[in-house]
Amino acid sequence: MALLTRFTSTRPPYVMSQTHSVDWLARAHASSEAALERLDDADREAFAVKMAWLIRRVGCSPDSIARRASVLPDFTACESDGAVPNVLYDDPRTDGGHGAHPHGHSAATRTELFARAVDAYFAHEYASVRDAPDDLIHVTCTGYVSPSGAQKMVAARGWGGRTRVTHAYHMGCYAALPAVRIAAGFIASGAECVDIVHTELCSLHLDPSDHRLEQLVIQTLFADGLIRYAMTASDDGPGLLPLSACEVVLPDSANAMRWVSSDWGMQMALARDVPDRIAGELRGFILELYRRAGLELDAIKRSVFAVHPGGPKIIDRVREVLELEPAQVQTSRDVLLDHGNMSSATLPHIWMRLLADPRVPRGTLIPSLAFGPGLTVAGTLLEKR
Amino acid sequence: MALLTRFTSTRPPYVMSQTHSVDWLARAHASSEAALERLDDADREAFAVKMAWLIRRVGCSPDSIARRASVLPDFTACESDGAVPNVLYDDPRTDGGHGAHPHGHSAATRTELFARAVDAYFAHEYASVRDAPDDLIHVTCTGYVSPSGAQKMVAARGWGGRTRVTHAYHMGCYAALPAVRIAAGFIASGAECVDIVHTELCSLHLDPSDHRLEQLVIQTLFADGLIRYAMTASDDGPGLLPLSACEVVLPDSANAMRWVSSDWGMQMALARDVPDRIAGELRGFILELYRRAGLELDAIKRSVFAVHPGGPKIIDRVREVLELEPAQVQTSRDVLLDHGNMSSATLPHIWMRLLADPRVPRGTLIPSLAFGPGLTVAGTLLEKR
Repeated sequence: MALLTRFTSTRPPYVMSQTHSVDWLARAHASSEAALERLDDADREAFAVKMAWLIRRVGCSPDSIARRASVLPDFTACESDGAVPNVLYDDPRTDGGHGAHPHGHSAATRTELFARAVDAYFAHEYASVRDAPDDLIHVTCTGYVSPSGAQKMVAARGWGGRTRVTHAYHMGCYAALPAVRIAAGFIASGAECVDIVHTELCSLHLDPSDHRLEQLVIQTLFADGLIRYAMTASDDGPGLLPLSACEVVLPDSANAMRWVSSDWGMQMALARDVPDRIAGELRGFILELYRRAGLELDAIKRSVFAVHPGGPKIIDRVREVLELEPAQVQTSRDVLLDHGNMSSATLPHIWMRLLADPRVPRGTLIPSLAFGPGLTVAGTLLEKR
Repeated sequence: MALLTRFTSTRPPYVMSQTHSVDWLARAHASSEAALERLDDADREAFAVKMAWLIRRVGCSPDSIARRASVLPDFTACESDGAVPNVLYDDPRTDGGHGAHPHGHSAATRTELFARAVDAYFAHEYASVRDAPDDLIHVTCTGYVSPSGAQKMVAARGWGGRTRVTHAYHMGCYAALPAVRIAAGFIASGAECVDIVHTELCSLHLDPSDHRLEQLVIQTLFADGLIRYAMTASDDGPGLLPLSACEVVLPDSANAMRWVSSDWGMQMALARDVPDRIAGELRGFILELYRRAGLELDAIKRSVFAVHPGGPKIIDRVREVLELEPAQVQTSRDVLLDHGNMSSATLPHIWMRLLADPRVPRGTLIPSLAFGPGLTVAGTLLEKR
């Protein structure tokens, strides 16, 4: 047996309301355009107004995402009258309108910012942890640095001979599920305690010179997320017990979602029909997940769902297709509202809430779903213990 | 039980002798310097001569690495009278001396070249494979693209509902060992067959504008490597049976080796004392590896070593510290001579040779060692079956 337990999350330091983020994004795009096209102040202002209108029209509204957190101060500059300097992106409010980095700083700078934030997070997160885990799985798709924050912390704590570090990198939003699968394998091979740590710093990967609608949508969805939990070789609660798992790469969907190492950070591509493509597979997928756990599909009625909220639409589609009550996906909506899409860190935030929520009784089934490039649909059926 | 078996490797299409590679590197550095510093032809030629002298002095000699392969034609341009165009790096012989990309092309181009080569490799490699594995672990530290070549092949073959893809990325030269560890966990969790595929395209990550000695050393060591093998839930040979494993992050060594996502591909840092630091840990490490397999250290005498040949020096140090006969590390030297350092693909090439070698009888112990950022020392003790 193996149990997911001991969830702790840390909110990145800079939090911006979604309403302000539209203004910030519009200004960053205008600053970039002004630098590249040598716009004067009036044209830049007009461009910002146009971008704000577009972003409000196509982007995720404050009804679905109220706030997002970042390790960068950049996004909060607009809320603090320019007192906070931008470190990665240009903003005419704080850079004097020079527009020196119309794409944001280069990949090397983004990687260094990632390393600094993640090193600090690991050091702080483990400062009061007394027992070395057998394994530490570090999950991210937003920064690649070796040695990693995980390895540095393990060495600094003197755990280098005890804790094996594994990087589960570049799988995207669904990566909690392969991480849990890898952890379950380590437990099956004799480990007692496997820590899983997600450090997703999505805010490091904007390119404000890319004004395509698809990018504007993406830029209103993603946020930074930091969370840690453990899989233990025990079935004593409280915790979440994996009953079954399933992972599928859909055919003919390779171009529907991409996440690629590029010049100005990582670059995402996201087709509009992703929620529909996923929805088309969901019934069969869920049926298989329950079947593998020896359960009939009518057990759905007594289940609470953990759905990776890539955006608000995918939660709607899951609800429709599986004919769920609003309450059955409410926690997924709540996490989206409070945090935005934190890539692979999102699903563990939902698990953490469901585990702590006294309204969700022990014995509740928690089918958990996440989606990513492939297209990959990944899921696990958990039981609250 | 679990057995490593069914090794098949593919040599990347462009093979260059080490002797020629020194000339190529010297010219690429001179072309870069000429573009950045506006050197005239005479100064560029003088710079090339100086670089060739330096590279011969500090770099790996043709006695240790005879040839290296790449997916890029660039390096063979010098051997074919300029008939082959350079795609990533400038060379005055083929670009007319313009020096348009003094660092080589950008990270985005390198990533696209990686994707194209790796997609083609997976499609070709699996064209004649009939049975879908339960799991496919894709190992690389030289290109991050989602969906990956692994995912695309799985989808194209109609295996999307059967084969789970796992990315084991960005661990560096020792990554075969965590990959084997992850595979063993999948087998322990019920999988029958786990494929492991390494695609290391190190040749995509040079920056010829960086003339530091450390970089010159690195640029004479690394090469591209493509290899596939399987772990099966069977102990019938022929194959290699893992008896024990060990993985250690050394203290105070975080800066000794780095591998970081950067502007002109991935950037490596490598301190001169890495072989000595590793050597200092080796005796205790090997002792522990044998102890975990229930064996005494005198079993070393009847062992053949698979040592990741980061460079020729580390093999020498392993031999010295463990008092080995030359024959006990000869296969590691042979793979270095024939291929160079193919990062994580190197150790599997050594395993493949030892498994196929009739002079290595069944029952032979094969302690296997690899090293990477952390510093990490990773090992497994295999037995030939």
